[in-house]
Amino acid sequence: MNLTTAFYSLHITALYKLILLDFLILIMIYNETIKLKIKSQDFFDITDKVESIVKRSEIQNGICTIFSVGGTSSVLINENEPMLIQDLKDCLEKIASEEKIYHHAENAYSHIRASFIGSSQNIPVKDGKVVLGTWQSIMIANFDVDNREREVVVTVVGE
Amino acid sequence: MNLTTAFYSLHITALYKLILLDFLILIMIYNETIKLKIKSQDFFDITDKVESIVKRSEIQNGICTIFSVGGTSSVLINENEPMLIQDLKDCLEKIASEEKIYHHAENAYSHIRASFIGSSQNIPVKDGKVVLGTWQSIMIANFDVDNREREVVVTVVGE
Amino acid sequence: MNLTTAFYSLHITALYKLILLDFLILIMIYNETIKLKIKSQDFFDITDKVESIVKRSEIQNGICTIFSVGGTSSVLINENEPMLIQDLKDCLEKIASEEKIYHHAENAYSHIRASFIGSSQNIPVKDGKVVLGTWQSIMIANFDVDNREREVVVTVVGE
Repeated sequence: MNLTTAFYSLHITALYKLILLDFLILIMIYNETIKLKIKSQDFFDITDKVESIVKRSEIQNGICTIFSVGGTSSVLINENEPMLIQDLKDCLEKIASEEKIYHHAENAYSHIRASFIGSSQNIPVKDGKVVLGTWQSIMIANFDVDNREREVVVTVVGE
Repeated sequence: MNLTTAFYSLHITALYKLILLDFLILIMIYNETIKLKIKSQDFFDITDKVESIVKRSEIQNGICTIFSVGGTSSVLINENEPMLIQDLKDCLEKIASEEKIYHHAENAYSHIRASFIGSSQNIPVKDGKVVLGTWQSIMIANFDVDNREREVVVTVVGE
Repeated sequence: MNLTTAFYSLHITALYKLILLDFLILIMIYNETIKLKIKSQDFFDITDKVESIVKRSEIQNGICTIFSVGGTSSVLINENEPMLIQDLKDCLEKIASEEKIYHHAENAYSHIRASFIGSSQNIPVKDGKVVLGTWQSIMIANFDVDNREREVVVTVVGE
């Protein structure tokens, strides 16, 4: 009877654990910080690095958030094609020119460009991979006046 | 005494389960992919579709992430009013004109417009519904030169 | 022997609980809504408020999502320096001028500015704090034609 009690108790515990495992056990948070040396006005492709981080997270299904630290840098998800990047730079130069006189003398155009492109983006994760279109890469822009080391935080939430 | 042991053990197990349930059991991930045929330069309203997905997710409290697959499309959360959309198109045409000569010959203006509006947005979920202002709709823009089928991934994280 | 059974059962239960705690117990969702009176075209700094919300959430590691309710307001993560904000306003005025004639007569420029800056941003949370660069503040812009009370939903997901 003691043995029966023990087995019964173990059975119940294991059952509860299985039920909990089914619904919950897979939700996790994982993050890594990337450091990059980026030239002024350049876009640095981090798609491979993000894919590796998602792989290391072992998360199969969820969201990957990219955040660029610093008010003169941005996250862009688009096609990494040199001539297109040049066109985008030309367009940003037209909107917030390096030559213009600003109230914030040092690097206003850097901050304005970063405000338009934005500090963060999210990408869904499915089957352990970021879901990107054929012509979508993840890039970090350094809009500052000088070449700089930039920090990017990649966070993965999911199961 | 055997019976006491069994009851005691069950009581402890149930208690632990209740404690765990209170804090955890509700965190879930849910996603669906929407396919849409969108005309060139049009904005397609997906508010109803997103609301249905959030309902099917059964998540009451959390975040809903919208991601548009492809470098020539964007997610916009704003008022879906035809004359306003025309004004926005006029503004995008001024910034990245269809008529201009670009280095990336095929569709540079499509990519540039998409870079400005952005690939992803997040909306909070409360009481099982996305929290949107009276004049906020969720729209997908197809900035490409042709009408295209676009894919949008909607992910809901929460409890 | 009864006592042995009871101890064994308790030991197993506690062990399972510890295993579950290690992997799961910390994933939580927390949100608060902030109400702000913001003058037309002003940027209101909410960094302190967001930091307090993250502290109250007791989440150490995760993501903080900021969403601005309403199609004429935006979330901006950038440097809160008055002269820079003036430069950004000048740039937005150039892109979507108050003086221009629009199809959507009331406040098209408000919606267009909001579309460019965007409705939501994510910031990573580490060691119980939002990860922001030295010159990064979280601001809410009210682009509407009038001073308005704006609502901002701050959601924290993590462990």
